[in-house]
Amino acid sequence: MSQPTTSQAKPKILVQLDIDPQPSVFDGVVAVDAGVDHLFRHASVTPESARDLVHGAIFTRGAADLRATAIFIGGSDANRAEAVLKAVKKSFFGPFRVSVLFDPNGANTTAAAAVLAALEGLGGSAEGAKVAVLGGTGPVGSRVARLLAGLGAEVTVGSRDLTKAQATATDLSERVGRTIGAFAMSDLADSIKDASVVVAAGAAGVVLAPRSVLAGLSHLKVLIDLNAVPPLGIEGVEATDRHANHGGVLCWGALGVGGTKMKIHKAALRALFEKNDQVIDAEEALAIGRAL
Amino acid sequence: MSQPTTSQAKPKILVQLDIDPQPSVFDGVVAVDAGVDHLFRHASVTPESARDLVHGAIFTRGAADLRATAIFIGGSDANRAEAVLKAVKKSFFGPFRVSVLFDPNGANTTAAAAVLAALEGLGGSAEGAKVAVLGGTGPVGSRVARLLAGLGAEVTVGSRDLTKAQATATDLSERVGRTIGAFAMSDLADSIKDASVVVAAGAAGVVLAPRSVLAGLSHLKVLIDLNAVPPLGIEGVEATDRHANHGGVLCWGALGVGGTKMKIHKAALRALFEKNDQVIDAEEALAIGRAL
Amino acid sequence: MSQPTTSQAKPKILVQLDIDPQPSVFDGVVAVDAGVDHLFRHASVTPESARDLVHGAIFTRGAADLRATAIFIGGSDANRAEAVLKAVKKSFFGPFRVSVLFDPNGANTTAAAAVLAALEGLGGSAEGAKVAVLGGTGPVGSRVARLLAGLGAEVTVGSRDLTKAQATATDLSERVGRTIGAFAMSDLADSIKDASVVVAAGAAGVVLAPRSVLAGLSHLKVLIDLNAVPPLGIEGVEATDRHANHGGVLCWGALGVGGTKMKIHKAALRALFEKNDQVIDAEEALAIGRAL
Repeated sequence: MSQPTTSQAKPKILVQLDIDPQPSVFDGVVAVDAGVDHLFRHASVTPESARDLVHGAIFTRGAADLRATAIFIGGSDANRAEAVLKAVKKSFFGPFRVSVLFDPNGANTTAAAAVLAALEGLGGSAEGAKVAVLGGTGPVGSRVARLLAGLGAEVTVGSRDLTKAQATATDLSERVGRTIGAFAMSDLADSIKDASVVVAAGAAGVVLAPRSVLAGLSHLKVLIDLNAVPPLGIEGVEATDRHANHGGVLCWGALGVGGTKMKIHKAALRALFEKNDQVIDAEEALAIGRAL
Repeated sequence: MSQPTTSQAKPKILVQLDIDPQPSVFDGVVAVDAGVDHLFRHASVTPESARDLVHGAIFTRGAADLRATAIFIGGSDANRAEAVLKAVKKSFFGPFRVSVLFDPNGANTTAAAAVLAALEGLGGSAEGAKVAVLGGTGPVGSRVARLLAGLGAEVTVGSRDLTKAQATATDLSERVGRTIGAFAMSDLADSIKDASVVVAAGAAGVVLAPRSVLAGLSHLKVLIDLNAVPPLGIEGVEATDRHANHGGVLCWGALGVGGTKMKIHKAALRALFEKNDQVIDAEEALAIGRAL
Repeated sequence: MSQPTTSQAKPKILVQLDIDPQPSVFDGVVAVDAGVDHLFRHASVTPESARDLVHGAIFTRGAADLRATAIFIGGSDANRAEAVLKAVKKSFFGPFRVSVLFDPNGANTTAAAAVLAALEGLGGSAEGAKVAVLGGTGPVGSRVARLLAGLGAEVTVGSRDLTKAQATATDLSERVGRTIGAFAMSDLADSIKDASVVVAAGAAGVVLAPRSVLAGLSHLKVLIDLNAVPPLGIEGVEATDRHANHGGVLCWGALGVGGTKMKIHKAALRALFEKNDQVIDAEEALAIGRAL
């Protein structure tokens, strides 16, 4: 049912399904700037309430016009949002479906932008690169790990809680079909000593990688810090860094990655309205970013 | 205050008053496709909260521009929505009023479309036609009964619960000023033996009229099944039927009726913005459908 | 960061932060009529939930486009809305800010319009004029008192509860830097005997100033009644009065003031989108009104 040839005239409607009590203003502004004509904003969406909303989206316009309706799933808790995504996909009915962008708290578009930075820092390929993701159990960190592993990198995820890191690593390994390692942040220096790429995706305002540890990394090529609130996650990386060369290491800060994230976010929204059968999750967001 | 001659420029605002916790996406998409410029969507609306919302709609624009604002009342429970309609009408203040479309769960537009099908099947007039409405106590069935009785048909409503059918029949008879009969579904074959029109408006996925019963109806001319989820409500009628001739009986299925319903729904929304003093309930929806 | 010279193309987004369970339809319609392209309506907003919403507004568009996003704060309780205003201002981050219109229940724009009427009635200046505000502890009355005191008038506020009137007078005096008096409504005749301007801003349907009291005011020049629901607040003033001369006294009623209020409200909304660093509270609303 993709790319029907008829009517182009229907206004573009984006149904924003947000799991939080207030729908995200951020996601709304980006949608407007990506050319959405009408934004239907829903808050406190649950897997249970998603079905009727999806049916309203798929059973109104004719087949040729379905691509002018799309769904955005967002909110601050990526796991709860993922349950809504699952319910949305289950509510589709054969050809009665609309395209979906899944980007809770910007996790997918941010991870995709971080991975683009890593690829740029590595000269284009992540194949075989040793990557350490600090704060790797969170929504962004786990997606960075998943995407880079999918590109052939040897990825490890670090957390203050080793058990948590191991659980995330196991989940991701199954998902990607490739082993992802785990380490405790208390064991940082030793755990990342061979890394060529270090990505910090931890909680705001916590220094994850101090200069003393970074100094000992002899293979280091790329540093990416996704925290914009001082103190930053990686000592020595500035929030505005974007392909900045600090002593031979290429660095990206949160704002440097953020510009790319916004471009991916808008391009993904525009892509929604090209055909009615897309689900844009992390991998698709990365593909959109690579095509920019 | 209808059809003022001045300013046409004001954007069309539809205030969607939905009684459910999430405002209907379906009703929103249809509103956009009917040309509404700004949709103000309200969920969990109660008779108590309706007053302030109505006052906001009627006390902002000048008299000549009031017809560019309108109200849609919807939601899954027609009775609770009807209480909101009552509160909305009570909140108008002399010439300070805006037009209203009342269509909870599509009950009015669906019933109007079903009645149009019945009229078409009967050759244009329902006068004196014997009509049985199965599942006649629900929001759609009771409106089909009410509308056809209003057109001079001899209508009976059937329910699994005879007491409920009798209560609905009494209510409708008072409303229409014409006797409507009642029967128990357990007594179906005998109750509908003289019917020329049978309409099924019951719960989804329940066979209301098996082929064995239909075979015994010697006066049958028209079958209308409003259930789109298999098993369908009337054996032998397909969901996509639209004036389909099955052994001399003209048949309409849920999707066949649905196309007309969508046209009525959109035409009713457009009619809202022609003048500011309309209340479009079942009868007005039917009149709009007949004029299409 | 005001008045950047680049991109004008971004659609105008107004983020409506309403403290009530249903966002105001009134404020929404006025926003649309003031040219807002997309209205993001939020209900039940609290100081706690405001921060994320503000961040979504300020961290999406680039500096040159920030003025195409703005915030409206409204709702039925001016004090609770003021707490949201405080939270909104606190959430701005250096140059990352958007303009804000604060107008809970129309209190600021109504007060500004009433003050414009008083100025017109006084021939252009309130300097030294003796003004009595009946119902002066409410959101509108206290703002009328505050604005007129700010223009040099000698203002007193009246309430049925003298303690409340005194508390309001003390608060306002500190805020304006000029003494504002207080009186009990039970002592009305004596308290307002020297007044040249009397403004009634009390509860709907209560006569605050009977004809018998008004007859004894030898210096009276202007009467302004902000109550539109009969019985009106000032005997002898009609709701539609607008610079009406009743026995040598210039009179304004609620609808007469209301027309000006709407103009100020719309002009304030348009002003929001001229630069990104404005906070339009009562004083700014008055300034906008004086420039009309």
